[in-house]
Amino acid sequence: MSDTGLFITLEGVDGCGKSTQGELLAHALEATGREVVRLRDPGSTRLSEKIRLMLLDPGNDDMCDECELLLYEAARAQLVREEIEPALKRGAVVVCDRFSDSTYAYQSVARGLSAGMIEAANELGCCGITPDVTLVFDLDPREALTRATHEGTDRLEGEGMRFQREVREGYLQLASADSERVRIVDALGTVEVVHVRVITALHDVIAL
Amino acid sequence: MSDTGLFITLEGVDGCGKSTQGELLAHALEATGREVVRLRDPGSTRLSEKIRLMLLDPGNDDMCDECELLLYEAARAQLVREEIEPALKRGAVVVCDRFSDSTYAYQSVARGLSAGMIEAANELGCCGITPDVTLVFDLDPREALTRATHEGTDRLEGEGMRFQREVREGYLQLASADSERVRIVDALGTVEVVHVRVITALHDVIAL
Repeated sequence: MSDTGLFITLEGVDGCGKSTQGELLAHALEATGREVVRLRDPGSTRLSEKIRLMLLDPGNDDMCDECELLLYEAARAQLVREEIEPALKRGAVVVCDRFSDSTYAYQSVARGLSAGMIEAANELGCCGITPDVTLVFDLDPREALTRATHEGTDRLEGEGMRFQREVREGYLQLASADSERVRIVDALGTVEVVHVRVITALHDVIAL
Repeated sequence: MSDTGLFITLEGVDGCGKSTQGELLAHALEATGREVVRLRDPGSTRLSEKIRLMLLDPGNDDMCDECELLLYEAARAQLVREEIEPALKRGAVVVCDRFSDSTYAYQSVARGLSAGMIEAANELGCCGITPDVTLVFDLDPREALTRATHEGTDRLEGEGMRFQREVREGYLQLASADSERVRIVDALGTVEVVHVRVITALHDVIAL
């Protein structure tokens, strides 16, 4: 394993199992003695969590697409500067739920913002940081929604099935454009089975 | 006067008199029967005011420069889509305290972010809108600070005198790069005297 840190991001539609698999992966990595930092984007810093609340509040349905895009990037920049950069410099493994690819899948494909605009925005929000490996947990959105057991419905999850299908399509486009970095993991199956797929998908970057 | 709307922005260091002069200008324009929309950036929409509170809160001193930049642009995008664009389409005159030039003067010159980064961010936040005329109220920062009679000191005003001088310098650079749009108004003098300077500076775009 490299001693300069490793940045792994987990992507996929809501309910695909990112968080559960992220926890399992983190435990597996920690068992090898490596420092693991678990994060979520947007979130994981005081300010980024504040911005996350604005983004997910169903009462903010007057938010325009560009404002939404820029708020995601603002939360991301804070996360990079405050958590990701220092962790990678220490040589830690960062396991982060969502990152720049979510912006592509959600804001570009599903909201119809131009790819150039997303790219410019991601460049500002990522502050020069790119994931070393990205796992996309691929799952039929209908299956994913039956898994999600939220009490309420947040602003994004209320967007409907067509939206979730377009998001999934966006992820598959990303994987086909950069298959070295972006790796598809079939998310249909038990937690244990999917965990084995995760470890397999990462065999060349982590030694377990 | 044009019937397609007119977008006037007011710029300058804190305490230079932007808001007072904006009110007087708005009254003068309204007296001619024209619809005038008074705005401030960041602010003037429900969401933009929320973002403004985050930006000005002295408790948010852990905010990184990129996060700050992107929050300004998020507030701006919402203001453009919700207020400025519709107003200009109705043929109104929009008089707005601060806009993209503030981002240049504050984030680029005073914070040291690259001009290319500011330009990319402004392009996202402005959503294709450029001011028709910008008035920079030019004043020695020491004079400006003695005018400011706030009870507390907000996050930006606490940055100190050197910072305010660099901001002023940034505005002067903008004016020298685009003197047709960006016009310097000497802000030293009584409210009435400066108001006359404002009207004079706008003689070719408004008929009073």
